[in-house]
Amino acid sequence: MQKKVFQLLVDNNSGVLSRISGLFSRRGYNIDSITAGETTEYGHTRVTIVTSGDDEILEQIEKQLAKLVDIRSIKELKPDESVYRELVLIKVKAGAEQRQAIVAVTDIFRAKIVDVSHECLIIELTGNQSKVDAFIGLLEGYEILEIARTGIAGLSRGIDNLV
Amino acid sequence: MQKKVFQLLVDNNSGVLSRISGLFSRRGYNIDSITAGETTEYGHTRVTIVTSGDDEILEQIEKQLAKLVDIRSIKELKPDESVYRELVLIKVKAGAEQRQAIVAVTDIFRAKIVDVSHECLIIELTGNQSKVDAFIGLLEGYEILEIARTGIAGLSRGIDNLV
Repeated sequence: MQKKVFQLLVDNNSGVLSRISGLFSRRGYNIDSITAGETTEYGHTRVTIVTSGDDEILEQIEKQLAKLVDIRSIKELKPDESVYRELVLIKVKAGAEQRQAIVAVTDIFRAKIVDVSHECLIIELTGNQSKVDAFIGLLEGYEILEIARTGIAGLSRGIDNLV
Repeated sequence: MQKKVFQLLVDNNSGVLSRISGLFSRRGYNIDSITAGETTEYGHTRVTIVTSGDDEILEQIEKQLAKLVDIRSIKELKPDESVYRELVLIKVKAGAEQRQAIVAVTDIFRAKIVDVSHECLIIELTGNQSKVDAFIGLLEGYEILEIARTGIAGLSRGIDNLV
């Protein structure tokens, strides 16, 4: 079982996300995360999919994705040639006593406090998956009330292998 | 036409994303962005959906979503009671001459340079949609090679209205 990250360029089209996620669920493929957003090319959306499986499954996934009509291109984003980032918002219960200790952990991870109320803080953190997991692990001594994660967005490093 | 942000708590299930996006495409609803990630409650995923339409359509969307079997709860994240954030990776063509000016813009927006090569930079920016759009606008004098956006993740401020 290994992870792969695919980058797709797709036509903007209300059904494209549904067709991609439908392909995964119909065939029982894992979809660890999927993110999508407009790119600079008018009418196109860039999608980042993180999936996992054995070699054979991953090869099938790539082939099946390439067959979908709205997909202009697909490439693998290899870990050593790519930048992956995820954004996470974490709401932690924190009265005046806990606040200082949580701010200290936040500073170490270069995370940001984006909201403060009497009873809780909302922290924004970006990074790769292992950084995010490590940060959440450190906060587990406190009461985490809610987490919202975006999933991974990725780009290849350098200029050569544009899709 | 107005925007609404919904927060869902759903059962982890390979088909749930496909059912949500299928509902939108089948009925012709707009899906501006959708993000999803594990939460602290085992077996559940938190989903943030940004959608747009007139009042009647938005009401229908909320009702239809609430009917889907895997959906535990749904609530609207109102702008003045919530924190929304998106992460964007932007690859900009930049030789040695352009680099300094781009770094200056990056600093003003508290964005981060996450990769540098001879010919280009990758910048990571987080913020609400208007900040992201303003930043991309400022970079348009340079050659933007690729953009990957995650879409919005959101949490309500304070502790009262947890779902």
